[in-house]
Order: sequence, then C-alpha cells, then structure tokens
Amino acid sequence: MDEQRFQPRSDLAVEDENVLPNQDKTGIDVQEREVDDITIVHVDIDEQGAEYSGRLPGKYLTLETLGIREKDTNMQARLIRILSEELISFLQASGVDENSSGLVIGLGNRDVTPDALGPKAVEQLVVTRHLFELGRIQNEDGYRDISAISPGVMGVTGIETSEILHGIVEKTNPDFVIAIDALAARSIERVNATIQISDTGIHPGSGVQNARKQLNEKELGVPVIAIGIPTVVDAVSITSDTIDFLFKHFGREVKDRKKPANALTPAGMTFGERKKLNEEDLPDEQDRQKYFGIVGTLEDEDKRKLIQEVLSPLGHNLMVTPKEVDTFMEDMANVIAEALNITFHKAVTIDSSGHYTR
Amino acid sequence: MDEQRFQPRSDLAVEDENVLPNQDKTGIDVQEREVDDITIVHVDIDEQGAEYSGRLPGKYLTLETLGIREKDTNMQARLIRILSEELISFLQASGVDENSSGLVIGLGNRDVTPDALGPKAVEQLVVTRHLFELGRIQNEDGYRDISAISPGVMGVTGIETSEILHGIVEKTNPDFVIAIDALAARSIERVNATIQISDTGIHPGSGVQNARKQLNEKELGVPVIAIGIPTVVDAVSITSDTIDFLFKHFGREVKDRKKPANALTPAGMTFGERKKLNEEDLPDEQDRQKYFGIVGTLEDEDKRKLIQEVLSPLGHNLMVTPKEVDTFMEDMANVIAEALNITFHKAVTIDSSGHYTR
Amino acid sequence: MDEQRFQPRSDLAVEDENVLPNQDKTGIDVQEREVDDITIVHVDIDEQGAEYSGRLPGKYLTLETLGIREKDTNMQARLIRILSEELISFLQASGVDENSSGLVIGLGNRDVTPDALGPKAVEQLVVTRHLFELGRIQNEDGYRDISAISPGVMGVTGIETSEILHGIVEKTNPDFVIAIDALAARSIERVNATIQISDTGIHPGSGVQNARKQLNEKELGVPVIAIGIPTVVDAVSITSDTIDFLFKHFGREVKDRKKPANALTPAGMTFGERKKLNEEDLPDEQDRQKYFGIVGTLEDEDKRKLIQEVLSPLGHNLMVTPKEVDTFMEDMANVIAEALNITFHKAVTIDSSGHYTR
Amino acid sequence: MDEQRFQPRSDLAVEDENVLPNQDKTGIDVQEREVDDITIVHVDIDEQGAEYSGRLPGKYLTLETLGIREKDTNMQARLIRILSEELISFLQASGVDENSSGLVIGLGNRDVTPDALGPKAVEQLVVTRHLFELGRIQNEDGYRDISAISPGVMGVTGIETSEILHGIVEKTNPDFVIAIDALAARSIERVNATIQISDTGIHPGSGVQNARKQLNEKELGVPVIAIGIPTVVDAVSITSDTIDFLFKHFGREVKDRKKPANALTPAGMTFGERKKLNEEDLPDEQDRQKYFGIVGTLEDEDKRKLIQEVLSPLGHNLMVTPKEVDTFMEDMANVIAEALNITFHKAVTIDSSGHYTR
Repeated sequence: MDEQRFQPRSDLAVEDENVLPNQDKTGIDVQEREVDDITIVHVDIDEQGAEYSGRLPGKYLTLETLGIREKDTNMQARLIRILSEELISFLQASGVDENSSGLVIGLGNRDVTPDALGPKAVEQLVVTRHLFELGRIQNEDGYRDISAISPGVMGVTGIETSEILHGIVEKTNPDFVIAIDALAARSIERVNATIQISDTGIHPGSGVQNARKQLNEKELGVPVIAIGIPTVVDAVSITSDTIDFLFKHFGREVKDRKKPANALTPAGMTFGERKKLNEEDLPDEQDRQKYFGIVGTLEDEDKRKLIQEVLSPLGHNLMVTPKEVDTFMEDMANVIAEALNITFHKAVTIDSSGHYTR
Repeated sequence: MDEQRFQPRSDLAVEDENVLPNQDKTGIDVQEREVDDITIVHVDIDEQGAEYSGRLPGKYLTLETLGIREKDTNMQARLIRILSEELISFLQASGVDENSSGLVIGLGNRDVTPDALGPKAVEQLVVTRHLFELGRIQNEDGYRDISAISPGVMGVTGIETSEILHGIVEKTNPDFVIAIDALAARSIERVNATIQISDTGIHPGSGVQNARKQLNEKELGVPVIAIGIPTVVDAVSITSDTIDFLFKHFGREVKDRKKPANALTPAGMTFGERKKLNEEDLPDEQDRQKYFGIVGTLEDEDKRKLIQEVLSPLGHNLMVTPKEVDTFMEDMANVIAEALNITFHKAVTIDSSGHYTR
Repeated sequence: MDEQRFQPRSDLAVEDENVLPNQDKTGIDVQEREVDDITIVHVDIDEQGAEYSGRLPGKYLTLETLGIREKDTNMQARLIRILSEELISFLQASGVDENSSGLVIGLGNRDVTPDALGPKAVEQLVVTRHLFELGRIQNEDGYRDISAISPGVMGVTGIETSEILHGIVEKTNPDFVIAIDALAARSIERVNATIQISDTGIHPGSGVQNARKQLNEKELGVPVIAIGIPTVVDAVSITSDTIDFLFKHFGREVKDRKKPANALTPAGMTFGERKKLNEEDLPDEQDRQKYFGIVGTLEDEDKRKLIQEVLSPLGHNLMVTPKEVDTFMEDMANVIAEALNITFHKAVTIDSSGHYTR
Repeated sequence: MDEQRFQPRSDLAVEDENVLPNQDKTGIDVQEREVDDITIVHVDIDEQGAEYSGRLPGKYLTLETLGIREKDTNMQARLIRILSEELISFLQASGVDENSSGLVIGLGNRDVTPDALGPKAVEQLVVTRHLFELGRIQNEDGYRDISAISPGVMGVTGIETSEILHGIVEKTNPDFVIAIDALAARSIERVNATIQISDTGIHPGSGVQNARKQLNEKELGVPVIAIGIPTVVDAVSITSDTIDFLFKHFGREVKDRKKPANALTPAGMTFGERKKLNEEDLPDEQDRQKYFGIVGTLEDEDKRKLIQEVLSPLGHNLMVTPKEVDTFMEDMANVIAEALNITFHKAVTIDSSGHYTR
C-alpha cells in the first residue's frame, strides 16, 4: 500500500473524486437518504474499495444541510437529534457498549476562529470522569464516564498533537475516542453545511504521514470516531466550483431557454434535489467549449491545477471562511456538543440538552 | 446629480472602474509613488471629476502592501510611519491645527471578527479628552484632546449609527472626526493589503442614502476623515479575479512560451510592479475567446453580473475573509492605532508607540 | 437641599444607614415580603423622607437571593419571572404603556469583567427599533420598539457617559429609559446576591455631581429606571462585616452556649430569616467590649472609618470581586436580559426566552 | 514523615508561619535583599528544616513588588530582568545547561480570569520544539528547544492534570519542566504583588495528596521549577490581616501619639521597609486586649479559625480577586512570559522581548 493512499485529496469522502464515481465497483458502497431536509450519505469502503479509491477503509457518514448557514434553529434541533442517532449507530457498530468510557478530543487552535470547532465543542460537554473516579456518580445515574481535552496545535505547543494524545490515552484508558475537528472543503457549498463522521481515525496536522502519528483503532487499541465540519475553502475551489456552476447555468439555458435560471435552483431546495437537477444540466463538451473555450474542456482536476498554478505564485490562493464565522462556529460547536451529550448520557435528553451547553 | 452618484460600486476609489480609467480627464488627478515597498496612490476628484466618475469629490489615498498579510513586522513598522505621515497631511490639508481636538469613531460590530477593525483600533488609542476637561493635561504636555467611541451597528443597537454619532458630535464639539471601518474589497488582492484614507466622509451602514445619515464636513461642520481596510471579499470577486488572472496567464503564455508562468510574477514583487507587468500581459480578444469562449469576451461588469446571477440563487455568493482573520485584525487595528497615536500626540513617538497599544 | 444629599454612602438603598433605621418616620415606607425564597424589599421615599435619609425621593425595590451565587438554575428561572413582574409594575407606575418605545443602556466597561454587567446584558436583548423604522414589525406582532446601547466609560472614551446618552436620547426620543449597571456593595452578603430596581435615575461615573450629568426623568423628560447588581465590595466592608458577624457569633454564644454556632445560621436560610435571627443575636455593649475591646464599642460608621484609615495608606483597601466572577457575570446578565425581553415583548415568554439570549 | 507535612497552610513559603519564625534554626536559611525597590527573599529548607516547618525541602524565592498592582511599566521592566536573572540561577542550580530542552506548563482554568495566569503566560512563549524537530533551527541560532502546554483543569477535562502531564513528559522527554500557576494568598498585601519560584515541584489541584499525582524531580526524573503568583485571597485572610493592621495602628499610636498614622506608612515604602516598621509597631498584649478585647489576645491561627468558623456557615468566606483582575492577569502573564523568553533564548533580549509577546 503506497504512501499516497493515506493522503486523500479532500478531508471529506463525498468530495473525493475517487469515491462516488467508483460507487458501483465492489468494495465501495454508497447509500443516500433524506430525513427532514437533511441529506444523509453513508459510504462504506472495504479493503478492496480502498485500492480503487486510495482512501482508508471504513465507514464514512455525511450529513448535509444548509440549516446552520441559514441560522434555522428548528433545523439545528433536528440536526442534533439525527446526529445523535448516527453517533449511537457508529458507537454500536464499533462494539462500544452503553457503559463504556469515552475520551473526546477537541482538535484545532482555539485562537483561530475558523479552526476552533473542536475546542469550542469540548467546552460544552458534560464531563464526568473525575466524578466517576471520586465515586460521586455511576452509570446507574444515567451518565457515562466521559473525559475531554483540547490539546492545542503543534505551532503553539511545539509538540505533535498525536504525541500528547497517545500519552493521555495510555494514562486514562478510555474505551473509545471521539475527535472533533474543523476541516477544509473543496467546495463552496459544503462550508458550514456538512458534518462528516468516520471510524477511520485521525491524523492530526496531516503533513508527513507516519504510523506513529496516527490516532486510529490499530494504534490506540480502541475505536476512534472522527467528527468533522468543513469551515474553510480555498480560492481555487471557489473559482473551480463557480466555473462549474456557470457550465450548468449555460447547460440549462441550452436545454430550456424559456425558464429563468433562478427558478430552476431556488435556495430552498435540498442538497439532494439540487444535485439531481444539476447532473441533468451539464452541457455537452461542444457547448462547454463554446461558452468557456479551452478552459471549458478541461477535466476537473486539470482545471483546479491550472487555477492553483495561477493563484499560488501571486499569493492569492487564500484559505477563506465566511464573514459570519463567529456565529457559525458557535452554532456548529453547540450542535456537536448537544448531540454528544445526548449520545453519551441517558440523563441528558433532547429537551434538556440546551441547559447543559449554556 | 443623481442618487446613484452616491453609491459607488466599491468602497475603494482605486477599484472603481469609473475612476482610474478616467484619470486623464480633467477633474480626476492620480499620482502614484513607491516608498519602502509600499505603493501610495493619491486620487483627487473635483466636482467635474465627480461627474465623470459618480464618486464623491475629495481626496482619496491608498497605501498598498502585502506586509500585513505576510506578517512582516518591519513592514508594519514602516507602514505605521508612512500612514502617520499621510494622516498628518490630510489633517493639515483639512485645516486642522496641532492643538485641535479630535473624535475617533470605530465603526463595525465588535463581535464579528472581520468587522471589528474600528472597535479594535479605538481600544488602543491614547484618549485624553477627560484629562483635558479635568485640567490634568494640556497641549503643552505633548497631547491633543482626543475622544473615541465605538457606537455599534444598527442590527445590535436598533439605532442608525449616524443618529448616535450626530448626537455625540453635537454634545462634544470636536474640531475634526476620524472614522475607522472594515470595508469590502472587489478584488482578492486587496483584502488585508490596502489602507484607504479619504476626506469625503462616511455613510455608515450604507443602504438607502439620505443626507441626514451622512457624516461629512457639510453635515457636521468639521472635517471628517475616513480610514478603511478591506477585510472581506465576495465569491463573485474571487472568481472574476481568478478568471482575469487566467487571462493574463494565457496572455503571457502566448507572448513568451519559454518562461515558466511563475517566474513572471514572483510573490516578492510589489503591487505596482505586478500591475505594470499584468497590463502588458492581457491577451487580445481573439485569444481570450480561444481560451475562455464566450465568457472570455465579456466586459468585466458583465462577467461579474453573470457570476452573481449564477451564485446568488444557490446561496453561494458568500462574503468571505481569510482563515487567519483573528491575527490580521489584531495587526491591522494595531497599525492604525499606533499611527493615530503618533499623529495626534507629540508625546507619542514611533519608538514609544508600541507601549501605548499593549 | 445640599450637595451631600445626592451622594448616598451606598449604591443600595437597603444598605443605607439612613434609610431602614428611619423607616418608621413619615416619608419612608418599607415593605418586605418573601416569594419563592426570594426576599423582596420595597422602599418608597418621598420628599420628606428624602430630608431624613439624604437619598433621592423615589421607589427602590430590592430582590435578595443567593440563587445566582449558588448557581441554582431553578432559582434563576424564578428570579427571571419575579424580576419581570416587578419591572412591569415599575413601568406601569411610571405611566409607560404597552406600546411605548424603550432605550436600554448598558453602563460599565465591557473589558473589566466585574464591571461588564450592563454591556453583557444589553448584548442579549431582543432589539427591534430598526425593524419598526423599516416597517418590518409592529406592536401587533407582539413586540415593543426597543433600542439598546453600551456607551463605554469615560476612562476609555474620554467623554462623560451622560453627554453621550443625552445626545442619543435627543436623537431617538424613547418613551422610557432603562439603565443597567454593576454596583459596589457595602456588605459581603449582597455581592452577586441582590438586584435593585429604582426610578430615581442614574448618575454615571458618579464623582462630582451636577445636574447636567444626571440621567433622570427631570433631565430627560421620560421615566428612567435603573437596574443594578452589586458585583464588587471593598476590603473595609469585608472586615467590618466580619467583625459584625463575630459580634453576633459571641452574642449567640452568650445567649445559648449549648447550640453550635453553625446550627443557628445554616447556609440554606433565606436572607430574611438570617436577618431576623441576627438582630436577636447582637450582644450588649458590655459583651462587645469584652470580646472586642474599644473596637467593639464603635458605631458602625466609626468602625468603617477606622478601618479605612488603616488600609488606605497601605494601598490595601482593594475593591474585590469573587473568584468566579466570569460565570457570575454571565448568569446575572442572562437573568436581567431574559427578564427584560419578557417584560418588553409579548412574543417572548418565560418558556421561550432562553432561545433569544443564546 | 506524615501526610500533613505535604499540606502547607499557604502556597507561599514566606507566608508559612512555620518558616520565617524558624529561620534561626538549623536547616532553614533565609536571605533577604532589595534590588530596585523589589524585595527578594531566598528561603532554603533542607531535610532538617523540613522537619521543623512541615514544608517540602528545597529552594523558595520570593519577589515582592507593588509594581504590577500600581501599573508601573518601568517597575515591570525591572521585574522582568530580575525574574529572568533568578530563573537562570534556578536552572543553573538544578544542573540545566544552556542547550537543555524545556517544557512549560500553564496550569489553571483559562476561562476563570483569576485562574488563567498559566494559560495566558504560555500563549506568549516563543515555542520552538517543532522547529528543532524539523531541523529548521538549532541552539547555534540562539534558541533552546522549548515546548509548552496548558492542560486544563480536572473540573473541565475530567482527568487529573498530573496524569495528562506525566503522559506528555514521557512522550516528549524534556530536560526540565517549568510550571506556572495562580496561587491563593493568605494575605491581602501579597495578591498580585508577589512572585514565588521554587524547585520543589507542583501538586496540581492539591486535594488528596499521593505520590503518583506529584510532578517533581523525583517522579519525573528532571528538575521541576514552579512559578506562582497569588491572585486570590479569602475573606478570612482579609479580615485577619486588617485586624493585624489595626493592632499595629494602635501600637504606633501608643508609641508616638504625635505623628499621624498615615505619615508612618506612606504608600511609596517598599515591602521591606513596611515590614521592619510594622514589627516595631506591635502593641503589647495588654494594649491588644484593651483595643480588641478577647479577640486581640488570640494567636494568629486561632484568630483565623474563629473567623472561618463564623463566615463559612453563612456562605460568606468568598475567595476574592481585585476588581481590576483582567489587566492584572494580562500584565502578570506578560511579565512571566517575557522573563521566560529571555531566560530560554539568547536570541531574545530584554530590548526585543516585547515583540515576541504581542
């Protein structure tokens, strides 16, 4: 298995150009469903599928919703419920029983707003390990044994995050680990609108990959579940996406010159509806060249490479985050923390979870 | 003079497509110079120039540097010195003498990081008005009479910012007003890299324009100098810019197929050098169509409109800010505050100014 | 009426040694009741009572509870309800009708944690004035026209807070004003445990008093209701209080040598119960001298003066706040904001108010 | 050696009633000197002295100054220099050479302002370990290999801080450890005015003491130097102190009835001068009883116990911090961070250190 297999091109499995296009092959299973305007995509990759896709074998779940970006509190409440249900499934599938102890890790730099998802979520967890140790509460009271830490980032501590976490796991022996992190999207439409859960472990700080620095079930001996939300996107992705949106725009115009473009993609449509619509809309290559010249004929990866080649030497391939980053981070950290509190502790219910995170 | 004259399409005069292209006409005077790798552009627009450009008559100064974005502390020190020199010129040109009293206004929402430039800068000012009132210091001690306030934004206070400020100016009677605000750029390369000073007043919250809501010399009876830094840019601008960079990239390729693209625009070049280079690089229309099809033949404004038309209904025309927004805002607020402290108070020198803003 | 009349020795009427001891005289009316473990004290002072007490004539209401200090969320919910009921009474008594518009002022320095009560409360208000101005909502929708501002403090702005506020009131013409401020207690037991509402106006920054700087109904032409919570206390008060507690301790020992001191004043007692108990416990002067020598024979004010005289030249008469100041301020600002939102807007109910302040 | 030996009654050796009073005995060596208005007290306790004092054997250094409390920036600059000199002595005495690697630990809860000294100081350190690991810098460049972490507190993480730190030390193998923590003073005059350095290790969270939870040279195998500043004091200490100040006040009155009390203890005196003066001023027992009755005759510990007994059941033995806690914490964290940066890295000098902590 070569090095590159461990360096997927996107933090999100659903964005990986080797995953969804390969979903008909043996070893990559994709299931999609819609619940309460939230699109849920399950991707299961086995060892064989890992060969096709260059992605770690395991389960990847994606929840897609514009609810957070549109500050829709009802949607956030539904999202908390669904996220909790899916987390319970992940824990069960990983063999974690109701009384298991868990360690939650908030990755990222708390002083860089778009990177502070993990630390902000961890702050709002109902943490109980010390109360179990002191004998003050027990599982019968409706709580699990939960600990939580935000280890900081290497640029601030000088220490590989994985070294810190290996040490803590060895000392505290949790039955499972959950890691929360802010991700980079390769698509403008996923920023602050997608939650990914996976059981393939984490590789904090990425960079050069070696086994010692990984935090996964193989290295730690306990299940490691990662929860990530993309909070930033680079200028290359924004431009590449927009050129694609332009293609589809022209494609629709070609197919149906009577309908106004806006009517076809109202902001109220779900991701799933949009996607279906969009796929039908792609113009053929001849039209792409007509509207976009040579650039229109490039494959997606080549188009991205070209844009990168142009922006990077100018210092303009900025990694950006929406202007409203402060409230987005608060809302998303709150959604994750409430979902985890409900997942962990029977004593915390959907109705009461708001009290615990204030 | 119609309404629209007061709604220029960009916060920055140098980005206004009606300004620089009209610089040879009577009434618009543009002077450019380079000091210590900082490009300084003076734009003077008189009543006649205002007719051509639809922009308020007055003086606009732009300092361009990547020093802040590249976290170059020496560059920041030079920037503080030059910014202070230019502010002194603006005050002198407005008839403000050394012992005049000033009110500094920090516009924007302190709880929205990319909007908090004004409030963060104002926090670091050496404020003295109360000490003058109490007779504890006087001009002979090397200080001016300075007051400062961050009035918040209408969405938070429920009050038009201009109403708050008109009230304060009436009660405190400053000899001049300086307003600091975070702006929106129409170009990715100006974000966190440009400082604009103008004497045309401010129009907080923009929106519907009426005289009562303006804060300018005519309304307030004292000079109003605005200092702005663009901290956000929208996806339309990022894409439009990048398509232009692609044009130039192909243009250069057409002209000189032997040189690698990167060699032509090293990141170390100043804005001025890049601009000159870029203008020579524009491919002709035929090449633009070849590489970019119909999109390549669009005028800039049409191209932007098309992109806007595609992104907005999808909810993807996000206003974004670089990921490192927290440190950028700290650094830029500090540069402005130190420059103002030096400008206002003889007792604060370039060497000592750092002590006052900590 | 001399100057001194306007400089009461405590921010709290119930702590003023000229108020409660004079409650049997004409012109000072004191009513006390207990609701849900919250002690509510009404003090009405008329012009004649003002002569006795040196305190501004008007209505003073005090809510006493240890619920915030003890982080009891049920107590906080009750407190929100009762505070809202009392605020409605104050508004009605001041002739403010249901559709009146209000301006809420958050006094204090947001960057000094124990002083940030006003700014923190104001941040959580449902502010609507701009929506009324734009015609987007109206009273029929269940909202009042509310605006809110935190004007900062003179040490930071250089401007008398009253000047800023006079200007805003003139420009925005609210029907009533509510001002929120952190106060200084003269007693350790009131810190973070007492809320005072009064209709006598505010005198921001106190210091030298002159009419121009007052914000009251007479100056502004509209009712001004002040809400204050003591968040700091000085070392003189802590020591003086503790010496008094020691007196009572000895007093009880003298009267009942068999009961342990603790049993007499369990932490679970209400303020009212404690007070009654305490008054019975005062030892007579002979015992006071026996246990405390000459110091034991001093009147309260003389004792405080002596302590002040000793601590001040040493630089040790610190103004202090409890270590847990951060959460206390969050909790108290939240209680005030939720109570005001319920008071102002019919659309905000006790059950829903939590959603508005998150 | 019994359990209690490890539970000294104060975090500060100089406040321990078993230390200074025993300084003439073998095994406890006390040296005091004055440098630039800063009182420096060295206390060396050997195994024998540990028997007398119940305090861990080792070196304790105390720097006393009101410079931070009085916001005197020149005093702070001197304090940084002297603190750095003393830290260099401690490191040398512990056998740490110039090229040794260090781990700095910021103890305390970053979200509780008076407890955030450690996390705030650690944020401002020049951290280099990762750059050494990547080969980007080396000792020859004027830097040491430094890492730094703020592990949080048990109430937030659910994990004993010592478990986290043992894990990190094992994984990263530093040559020495420095731990920074906010302490509790037993005296109002030491709050924010004393820095203690010791080589006896730390016992995070104190509470039940057992060897596993200690972080000292014996447990970790490398020197552990603790830096602490008292930031809080309880009401018992404030009262007890003030009663002592009253004693001295009366004592002076007895001895010299002509001088006003204030003239004897001007605020400008150093701690050392005040202390000397004060010791001469103690009234004899007969006078103490005259002025303070039975309370006046109590030994210090008995007086404290009595006050505690009275305040605790009332819920009034608050742990408090000065109102200006926010700026005090900023200033003190800055002093420690600058002193450490200078101590660690030759490339950071007293003149340049300010640039690194901004």
